[in-house]
Amino acid sequence: MSVTDPQRITLIGLGTIGMSMAALHLSRENVTVDVFDTRPDFDQYLFNTLPNFLDQGPSSANFKSQPSTSAVASLIASGRLNVHTSLETACASATIVQEQGPENLEFKQTLWAQVESFAPSSAHLWTSTSGIAASAQQQKINDKSRLLVVHPFNPPHIMPLLEIVPSPDTSPERLEFAREYFSVPGSKHRPVVLQKEIPGFVGNRLAFALLREACYLVQEDVVSAKDLDTIMKLVLGQGGTMQAVWDNLGKVNVLRNEETSWKEKVVSQVNEAYGTLTPGQVREKEERLKDFVAIQTKKYGHDVPEA
Amino acid sequence: MSVTDPQRITLIGLGTIGMSMAALHLSRENVTVDVFDTRPDFDQYLFNTLPNFLDQGPSSANFKSQPSTSAVASLIASGRLNVHTSLETACASATIVQEQGPENLEFKQTLWAQVESFAPSSAHLWTSTSGIAASAQQQKINDKSRLLVVHPFNPPHIMPLLEIVPSPDTSPERLEFAREYFSVPGSKHRPVVLQKEIPGFVGNRLAFALLREACYLVQEDVVSAKDLDTIMKLVLGQGGTMQAVWDNLGKVNVLRNEETSWKEKVVSQVNEAYGTLTPGQVREKEERLKDFVAIQTKKYGHDVPEA
Repeated sequence: MSVTDPQRITLIGLGTIGMSMAALHLSRENVTVDVFDTRPDFDQYLFNTLPNFLDQGPSSANFKSQPSTSAVASLIASGRLNVHTSLETACASATIVQEQGPENLEFKQTLWAQVESFAPSSAHLWTSTSGIAASAQQQKINDKSRLLVVHPFNPPHIMPLLEIVPSPDTSPERLEFAREYFSVPGSKHRPVVLQKEIPGFVGNRLAFALLREACYLVQEDVVSAKDLDTIMKLVLGQGGTMQAVWDNLGKVNVLRNEETSWKEKVVSQVNEAYGTLTPGQVREKEERLKDFVAIQTKKYGHDVPEA
Repeated sequence: MSVTDPQRITLIGLGTIGMSMAALHLSRENVTVDVFDTRPDFDQYLFNTLPNFLDQGPSSANFKSQPSTSAVASLIASGRLNVHTSLETACASATIVQEQGPENLEFKQTLWAQVESFAPSSAHLWTSTSGIAASAQQQKINDKSRLLVVHPFNPPHIMPLLEIVPSPDTSPERLEFAREYFSVPGSKHRPVVLQKEIPGFVGNRLAFALLREACYLVQEDVVSAKDLDTIMKLVLGQGGTMQAVWDNLGKVNVLRNEETSWKEKVVSQVNEAYGTLTPGQVREKEERLKDFVAIQTKKYGHDVPEA
């Protein structure tokens, strides 16, 4: 099966990431989406929440003229979106099953065993985990060649980056299928395939390396949280005497039983400088994200990584 | 003396950073610039090189209509730019002396002792060092309250960030003068005052923390240098399981006698992916920098940090 063939994607777990992922897939005209979530008010929640993502998604033009909840109704009426009350029916016709459930190893292992029993044996199995490797998640399934990580960045319908991380058992064909799915002409997404499983994958490791040093500098009173933020925004890299700095890079801990004195300081300074985001500010932040993504894409080219 | 009064700035060391710094100061109409450099062909070098920075600087509109070298000639004719062949005459009338010399502690200590003997005692002493603290540089001068670090990012006439780092001996008035100088209305610059001297200051510490992890990931074959670059561009931060990643962050060394196997791999992958920059690509890179700076400034406000 080619990625340009019609696909039928089962999404399991429709929290914030799941809703955004649904919007991502629904922006592709030849994709049918089946959704399943265990929350009791799921139907109502979907009607209320999904339109927020559709309005901001790549497919916004299709829905803008319609009142928000009716966008969901018309997707359902057209058969492009199917709401399920059992995992079994949700998976029955899938070509791809993608989960955005809790970040809990037990949960994911059990889920994949169930999915394997319900879905066609050809279906691709994708996990949106930000931390649990496919090689750990696959323990209770028979065909371990089907499962891989597709780690999105929040919100996936806006953020172009997807880290695709195979386990050593993932087949090259299934890996390539996932990469191609997100790279089809017109896709705003930029999948990057990691060559090895590693805790945190790559994007978060880089972000956390930065964050650790940032927390240390605020803890040590070298700079205020607000000034640090200004510096972070403005720094685009420069040379210098690296080894001296590396030997001296700070360490802070996040575990509760370790030294966490930096935490209070950082949190209180950030709250003082910025306060809690209002819905309008959240919206503005998303608009800004979209602006930057658009600038990167339009102005400097959309060089999808080669296979 | 107020920062809005006319200033006379002596620049010592006119390499790439010095030339860009000259362009920065010359963009201020009430600033006179005195330049001194020990290279034998300094006159010719200045005539050939400075126009490249003036053309791209905030003052470009003033010079665009003129052939390049005559821009320098007219600055000299108008008295706004003075070329000196001795440190003594260069410093004689300075209100500010700023050095961009070699990153060598001996050199800077000796230079400041000479500057102290030649310049008015009221003159502010600024070092553009990226790594040698003012408290180390000030050892051979009598009035240690005058010296502070103004660490620019390359190229200073485009990059808004300046890290101002006082020594424990720097007077609050001189610190405030430097901060205000770069914050006057209309300034494109955003000075941030660090509260403590620390190796690498803040911006480079953050960049190096990121770079260290990046080198490790390429060394370990988790990701290619090119794919890592794609991820770096696209990641704008996200939550996750931090401690696990922090405990696992990679280490690489840059000293020659340590393990440097990562170096060859990173350098060859980067060369393979990007090659050497042509002059056109260097120009494009600068244009891109200016675009991003303009977007940050115009669209999201120019919130100069408060004192």
